[in-house]
Amino acid sequence: MTTTLPVATGACCAPLVRAPLGAEDATRLAGTLRAIADPARLRLLSLVAAHEGGEACVCDLVEPLGLSQPTVSHHLKVLVDAGLLTREKRGVWAYFTLVPGALDSIASVLVTTGS
Amino acid sequence: MTTTLPVATGACCAPLVRAPLGAEDATRLAGTLRAIADPARLRLLSLVAAHEGGEACVCDLVEPLGLSQPTVSHHLKVLVDAGLLTREKRGVWAYFTLVPGALDSIASVLVTTGS
Repeated sequence: MTTTLPVATGACCAPLVRAPLGAEDATRLAGTLRAIADPARLRLLSLVAAHEGGEACVCDLVEPLGLSQPTVSHHLKVLVDAGLLTREKRGVWAYFTLVPGALDSIASVLVTTGS
Repeated sequence: MTTTLPVATGACCAPLVRAPLGAEDATRLAGTLRAIADPARLRLLSLVAAHEGGEACVCDLVEPLGLSQPTVSHHLKVLVDAGLLTREKRGVWAYFTLVPGALDSIASVLVTTGS
């Protein structure tokens, strides 16, 4: 491991096919997975990552998602609370970016093939 | 890509940080993520993978999980329906194995770092 990136709240452990997943780790990981187990939230993560500079405000996300601003704000809050997005207020808008390493931490628990 | 492994029902697409995730792909992936966004089901995947020969029957899984057999059977059915486990009836018991590549397909959509 050479990374020093922050780790998402729900990320935990060795690949689940390699070592038995304990009850606590399973509960934590399931919580993070619930945060992304929603089509709108998956698309939000994708849209934020694809946006210029890797950050986006609600104002950038409402139209591509086709949902109301309060609904988009709700989904963004779920992703922030799960440790997947950071939120930074600048002027009128809050700007969202991916937490580095957060999605990779989830992926690393699911992956079954070694590197 | 050199793999010819079967692909899980819910797996889809390029890493979501690289290419915008479409509505249909997002719905499909969210469905698969919902199947694993549960502590008991994550532990079941882990237990099946760790079991001798990479397969296990309900009889092997009830005790380590500490849940009733009908509850374990329900969770196993959710994982089979999501394309993550296969079920093979042999004699009295049904035996479950991981669908090769299924968890890796989910991981490959979430991962943000290139290979």
